[in-house]
Amino acid sequence: MERRDTLEASTPDKPAEKDWFQYQLKHQDGTSKARRGQFVTPHGVVQTPAFMPVGTQGTVKGLEIGMVRQTGAQMILGNTYHLSLRPGDDVVADLGGLHKFMGWDGPILTDSGGFQIFSLAQMRKITEQEAVFRSHIDGRKIHLSPERSIEIQENLGSDIAMVLDHVVALPNEPKVIREAMDRSIRWAKRCQDAATRKDQAQFAIVQGGLDEKLRVECAERLGELNFPGYAIGGLSVGEPPPEMYRILDATCPALPAEKPRYLMGVGRPEDLLEGIRRGVDLFDCVMPTRNGRNALAFTDEGTVRLRNAKYQRDSTPLDPKSVPQVAGLSRAYLRHLFMAKEMLGPILLTLHNVAYYQRLMREAQAAIEEDRFESFYQAKMEGWGSAS
Amino acid sequence: MERRDTLEASTPDKPAEKDWFQYQLKHQDGTSKARRGQFVTPHGVVQTPAFMPVGTQGTVKGLEIGMVRQTGAQMILGNTYHLSLRPGDDVVADLGGLHKFMGWDGPILTDSGGFQIFSLAQMRKITEQEAVFRSHIDGRKIHLSPERSIEIQENLGSDIAMVLDHVVALPNEPKVIREAMDRSIRWAKRCQDAATRKDQAQFAIVQGGLDEKLRVECAERLGELNFPGYAIGGLSVGEPPPEMYRILDATCPALPAEKPRYLMGVGRPEDLLEGIRRGVDLFDCVMPTRNGRNALAFTDEGTVRLRNAKYQRDSTPLDPKSVPQVAGLSRAYLRHLFMAKEMLGPILLTLHNVAYYQRLMREAQAAIEEDRFESFYQAKMEGWGSAS
Repeated sequence: MERRDTLEASTPDKPAEKDWFQYQLKHQDGTSKARRGQFVTPHGVVQTPAFMPVGTQGTVKGLEIGMVRQTGAQMILGNTYHLSLRPGDDVVADLGGLHKFMGWDGPILTDSGGFQIFSLAQMRKITEQEAVFRSHIDGRKIHLSPERSIEIQENLGSDIAMVLDHVVALPNEPKVIREAMDRSIRWAKRCQDAATRKDQAQFAIVQGGLDEKLRVECAERLGELNFPGYAIGGLSVGEPPPEMYRILDATCPALPAEKPRYLMGVGRPEDLLEGIRRGVDLFDCVMPTRNGRNALAFTDEGTVRLRNAKYQRDSTPLDPKSVPQVAGLSRAYLRHLFMAKEMLGPILLTLHNVAYYQRLMREAQAAIEEDRFESFYQAKMEGWGSAS
Repeated sequence: MERRDTLEASTPDKPAEKDWFQYQLKHQDGTSKARRGQFVTPHGVVQTPAFMPVGTQGTVKGLEIGMVRQTGAQMILGNTYHLSLRPGDDVVADLGGLHKFMGWDGPILTDSGGFQIFSLAQMRKITEQEAVFRSHIDGRKIHLSPERSIEIQENLGSDIAMVLDHVVALPNEPKVIREAMDRSIRWAKRCQDAATRKDQAQFAIVQGGLDEKLRVECAERLGELNFPGYAIGGLSVGEPPPEMYRILDATCPALPAEKPRYLMGVGRPEDLLEGIRRGVDLFDCVMPTRNGRNALAFTDEGTVRLRNAKYQRDSTPLDPKSVPQVAGLSRAYLRHLFMAKEMLGPILLTLHNVAYYQRLMREAQAAIEEDRFESFYQAKMEGWGSAS
């Protein structure tokens, strides 16, 4: 196996300050609302639609950072909540920021901690001032206000910081959803006011549950605050996918066309294409990494569960279009690694899955440029067995 | 960080059949008994002294196979016992042999299972005919005779197979040690008689505990059987290092000078140099990989325990001479990965340690070629704080 060709030169030219945080629409697909664009950050340009692998604790789990580059990923996500607890944002700042800490010189987006307060923290209490909760690591009490979230993210030095939002479980009472939405807007303004770094942009987060009117109202009110980008949050928390698509149908048109749109925490390959055809530009999800660690691989023919006994003597590759490190191996070998609990199984499947997601984004970009996104979408869905 | 330079072209030219299993002494050090040589296998030439990383279950734990190549490792070790239990040597054979199975086209040596019967198997019973024991995975009863060990190793298709030996705990009664030695010699002959593959050589294993006379007798009796290589087994099982060195002092001169000498399961960097200066050519050990997974790194200044709190904000690299994937990172980051239980910690430390061992071998080779092995040895020992 030749390996040199797998390591693409990946140090981006660093953009000039005047171009930072500009979104440029390069082409509007003629068959859908899909957009082909680019977004400029201090650490390089992100071609959209784009998918960010998740590097929760300063590492994309299982991947040496050169492997992350190899997949073609242009921007990665770091988690404010986790990194503030361990090793501590002050430690990361002392060591020169998250880019230097983890050896990634491309763009980084950090979330705000809002979703982790919702999903991980114990004994949380949310007031207008802040969220108070206990660390999932050692139980100590943590205060997280919009201002503190921005302070952490400035310490981490990400290119894009997310505003602190108030995420609620779905379904929920209309009153609870509206209150969380209103608070999220007030907190977004407080985050904006707390910013001190020119080399970091903030994205606001649209909340509003599964209520289209609330979503539109939230998008419009946040739009008035003129953030350089907008996220759609509070989805993919257990609702049926069609509900999510319905909210995207309503929300995307209410967002400023000249700003990037980021659908947080989503998702399966089909969800990505459903988002793109509704005008979403940016995604993140643990799905390729978490599933990779659990022996589930994404391919154009659908998912492959490598622990399945039928692969015991299967000499065929998982996916001939995979990265060279995986394409040259048999399904039987990959299965063996998981059965023997060898680290290399999670490593290789994570690499494959992240590369698969990146390839999907590059294919989507090409399809938009050539005004054939809908037929691309249909063909992919048929291949995955998810044709609607 | 530039990555291209880290991936050396590593596909060796495949040697002609007439040269297979020849050992060539290239230079005898003028200051010690250290030997600079090479050993030819069907899958390439091994420059000696050499260290084999251990790939117990068809993978060097934590390392993508390109990373193994990157370290400069020329030959790796696979485990007969483990691979015969899982996935099964018949499965590996069906899939084209161990080289193809794991994607390694360089030389492979397989052990015989003798040491694992000693160290891992439950309820073992050893008769003249065979060892009978229970699998450590599922408790089923396994029969391992010399003939079956060779059958497994031929199924795996390694370049070098080890004869099945009878390993006993030390210290032990002289009678037990002699019986195990005598049996090991009879089993070596049975292994030799069982061989059917021309593209696989067998190495015999010298036993005899810590008794120099037994060791010499064993070496001489095995020498008469004219194996293409000789191993020294049954050491590094808990005896003090000077005892091992004493046995090496006695055994190496009793082995044929025109054959490679392999000290099995050894060891620490200082043990490797102690072996080399006594005329050993080949080593294997889990130490660089196992310690790497446990946050212990080898450097020219001694071992570094990366979990130590003093590294929490240490911005210096672990070792500026490490592989690029590690040299560009801080000790603080490496520590963080271990504290956060991230796979990347074991991956990077394993890569570093295996590369450190390979660099040590290349440095030793150069020192021998230049007749300065003793001063090289002294300088290394002083750096490690192990000066004798």
